[in-house]
Amino acid sequence: MIRVSILYPHTPGIRFDLDYYLHTHLPMTEKLLAPHMRSMVVERGVAGTTPGSSPAYVAMCHLEFDSIDAFLEAFMPHMATLTGDIPNYTDVEAVIQFNEIKIARTY
Amino acid sequence: MIRVSILYPHTPGIRFDLDYYLHTHLPMTEKLLAPHMRSMVVERGVAGTTPGSSPAYVAMCHLEFDSIDAFLEAFMPHMATLTGDIPNYTDVEAVIQFNEIKIARTY
Repeated sequence: MIRVSILYPHTPGIRFDLDYYLHTHLPMTEKLLAPHMRSMVVERGVAGTTPGSSPAYVAMCHLEFDSIDAFLEAFMPHMATLTGDIPNYTDVEAVIQFNEIKIARTY
Repeated sequence: MIRVSILYPHTPGIRFDLDYYLHTHLPMTEKLLAPHMRSMVVERGVAGTTPGSSPAYVAMCHLEFDSIDAFLEAFMPHMATLTGDIPNYTDVEAVIQFNEIKIARTY
């Protein structure tokens, strides 16, 4: 299993419309990718580790698929729609990477 | 619910012993924190989005707790043990932040 991580840096002066992201962009993402997607986790950055510090990322999104190929198969037909919606909620460039899941446990 | 994200930057020349991390450090983390922890997800960075590119992070670890207070209660008694073990697998400084979980769905 792999996860695609989309991390939005907490840059000073950044525009990030969390409401639009959560209630418009992500439901669109879910609708378009869910047939191929295994899980979606979305987080809002709250704080760094030193008191009063900002988080490095204002938001993180983790999308799980069987493989990178499965992600590409799901994503490529909707790439223009999904990436075209990004300016509607942010002007920051996301850090995006593919990960192999090594451990996934609940307690 | 909150998650603590520990992200290890993929710095050129970095030392990162994935085997030690997965098979010694994380079992120790699990043993010490599991009574308070809700989930653990650990990923190995595979690639960025452009062909042949390195991922921004060589590894990511996401630990879920009921609250930041619950994390601190679990972590503080073992902080010296856990942070003291870090030089055994890496020389890179992790990016650490607290996140509020906004969406967590499986399909």
